[in-house]
Amino acid sequence: MKADLLLHGVHVATLDTDEGYGELHDAAIAIADGRIAWLGPARERPAQLQAQQVLDLGGGWLTPGLIDCHTHLVWAGSRAAEIERRWQGASYEEIARAGGGIVSTVAATRAASEAQLLEAAAPRLLALRGEGVTTVEIKSGYGLEVAAELRLLRVARELGRRHGVQVRTTFLGAHALPPEYRGQADAYVDEVCHRMLPAVHAEGLADAVDAYCEGIGFSPAQTRRVFEAAQALGLPVKLHADQLSDLGGAALAAEYHALSADHIEYSSPASIEAMARAGTVAVLLPGAYYCLREQRRPPVDALRARRVPMAVSTDCNPGTSPCTSLLLMLHMACTLFGLTPAEALAGVTRHAAQALGLQQRTGRLRVGLDADLAWWAIDHPRDLVCQFGFNPLRASWRQGQLLVRHPN
Amino acid sequence: MKADLLLHGVHVATLDTDEGYGELHDAAIAIADGRIAWLGPARERPAQLQAQQVLDLGGGWLTPGLIDCHTHLVWAGSRAAEIERRWQGASYEEIARAGGGIVSTVAATRAASEAQLLEAAAPRLLALRGEGVTTVEIKSGYGLEVAAELRLLRVARELGRRHGVQVRTTFLGAHALPPEYRGQADAYVDEVCHRMLPAVHAEGLADAVDAYCEGIGFSPAQTRRVFEAAQALGLPVKLHADQLSDLGGAALAAEYHALSADHIEYSSPASIEAMARAGTVAVLLPGAYYCLREQRRPPVDALRARRVPMAVSTDCNPGTSPCTSLLLMLHMACTLFGLTPAEALAGVTRHAAQALGLQQRTGRLRVGLDADLAWWAIDHPRDLVCQFGFNPLRASWRQGQLLVRHPN
Ligand SMILES: [Zn+2]
Ligand SMILES: [Zn+2]
Repeated sequence: MKADLLLHGVHVATLDTDEGYGELHDAAIAIADGRIAWLGPARERPAQLQAQQVLDLGGGWLTPGLIDCHTHLVWAGSRAAEIERRWQGASYEEIARAGGGIVSTVAATRAASEAQLLEAAAPRLLALRGEGVTTVEIKSGYGLEVAAELRLLRVARELGRRHGVQVRTTFLGAHALPPEYRGQADAYVDEVCHRMLPAVHAEGLADAVDAYCEGIGFSPAQTRRVFEAAQALGLPVKLHADQLSDLGGAALAAEYHALSADHIEYSSPASIEAMARAGTVAVLLPGAYYCLREQRRPPVDALRARRVPMAVSTDCNPGTSPCTSLLLMLHMACTLFGLTPAEALAGVTRHAAQALGLQQRTGRLRVGLDADLAWWAIDHPRDLVCQFGFNPLRASWRQGQLLVRHPN
Repeated sequence: MKADLLLHGVHVATLDTDEGYGELHDAAIAIADGRIAWLGPARERPAQLQAQQVLDLGGGWLTPGLIDCHTHLVWAGSRAAEIERRWQGASYEEIARAGGGIVSTVAATRAASEAQLLEAAAPRLLALRGEGVTTVEIKSGYGLEVAAELRLLRVARELGRRHGVQVRTTFLGAHALPPEYRGQADAYVDEVCHRMLPAVHAEGLADAVDAYCEGIGFSPAQTRRVFEAAQALGLPVKLHADQLSDLGGAALAAEYHALSADHIEYSSPASIEAMARAGTVAVLLPGAYYCLREQRRPPVDALRARRVPMAVSTDCNPGTSPCTSLLLMLHMACTLFGLTPAEALAGVTRHAAQALGLQQRTGRLRVGLDADLAWWAIDHPRDLVCQFGFNPLRASWRQGQLLVRHPN
């Protein structure tokens, strides 16, 4: 057996297990052609295994490269002044009158060139990458018109190419109603389904389609139309569901065999049951919950009981979760939502991959899967979760190529 | 006027103001002998100002170096397994029976050598330093016996020397009752006052004295004895006060003209009034509040009304705030406690300096004060507060010496 790279002198958490971390002590991993060619206790390494390069890591743990499966990280402009005004006591009405809210991000994003969007978004991607993230999902939804949505998704793809991170794009034309469609939500959904989505699809810019189904967003009937249009093009769907109220969004997502239903604080037991049957992943977003000071947690006990896979993500966005630390989300998932550390870590690896339809490519350490790896200066995998506001990453690899290397 | 270093091409937030950020656009700062020799709009720079080295920063903002004024960052051992067990559903009793809690940290810290403590604590200090922190307070309180308390405080001082950060040490012998004094709290307070504190003071290892005044800690009467002993040696005091219940701790601290009263979630209006009269700083610790899922916020409105200076800190410790991000505390101070961004930033600069008795040395940018600076890739000072889980630091200086330099 020939390998390009052999890593040893390290413990491994494969996350390739239903429970716990999948711990292998004193392990070795062989990488060939960007994939994991062999993996096991170092002493069981086959004699015929030859590697071009052999690296003794001298300690720490390897995990799958982290996956941030729900972000909106390409936007222009800043909402910091608006957030400050809110903290100074301004009401939502005052902020809206001052031109704040998502409308301001849409205006700034429409006005930005591709180069400006790239420059604005790169630090966010690099912050995630610097914490061991090797795959990121990026949604559109701040363009809300054909040209701007295309531009945003092109920038998302280009970010991945430039910075070596695997980027999966999601078309979220049905994110909010643009001001020019005020009072004409159905006409805007027509535009989304019949002009924007086909244009995005024609350029191969969407790996999936999402919508924001909420009282302040789009109705279940409108969401259904978006899903039908996506399925007609063979694209998988996802949904922002039941964040602020129970509109049956998670069940609707499950009906369309969605990859994931995201937020789901208010989802009913029947919706959880539908997700379990459909194999839809629950994407939990504790950063938004924390920022909005929500009181209603997602139904973690029910998800656990029905064995619905739980993913965890930053929801990186300018308004309700201006956050670029996936490690922090691990701690918040446990502190605020009651996940265990092993569940949280599965939520940014195995289950996050499943939320993107990538479970046969990445998110676990297993022979045949992509060699997406993160190497940490920690004593146990739980240490990634049980501290916060710190970053013990030493290095990461995407498909066997060194991606990040931090000094000790 | 001769200077060693002149920084320009940057905006400055002096924090040398009662409200807001103290913004100076297109500013310059001259540094001589480690102190700020001149500061103002670049165009007003005096013609006779000559500098050995001139640096055009080419953008961003300078603020005072950040100050983390309440940490317990020197400890040995790990509480991660205990935290994991708690998240898995174990009760406090089960964890105590399994040898968890502060007792386990005390046992590990007593067993650790100075070298082992240094190695364990350095990554925590470096994480803070990497976010622009130039001054850190470090408390003892995991030794709880003469030799171990001395060792811990020596390590705290050595950390500062090795890593170029100003370290202020606080003796916290009255942190918890060590197991060998079970049922004999008064006898332990005798030991603290008559053996430990004099020994610590004789080596010059304490800049201040603190105690944990709480139902599960030491009583007001015991705290009083510690304060008397400190004042007899001429040492200023601080207090962990009113975190879980109102024992009048903040008022007691004020009575002894404490530098600060810390936590103070349950402090009464009368206590706040006493703090205002005494000039005692309120140190707010949102990380512990978040970790413990507390519901009672500190009385921010009352503190604001009485103009009690509010500082913000990590409370970095292994059990209730295993956190090394002061930037994250800024966001949590606003989100969880209702501070404004300008108040939060004052809380890690001007008011944090005051909580350490250093307000005439650091914490503001003003001629004559130490040239402790942090340089950030941001568009406005509020950007340090209105995002979270990110780090825009580009460089920092302590007394005019370059301390940290991050690649762009
Ligand atoms: Zn979202
Ligand atoms: Zn403390």
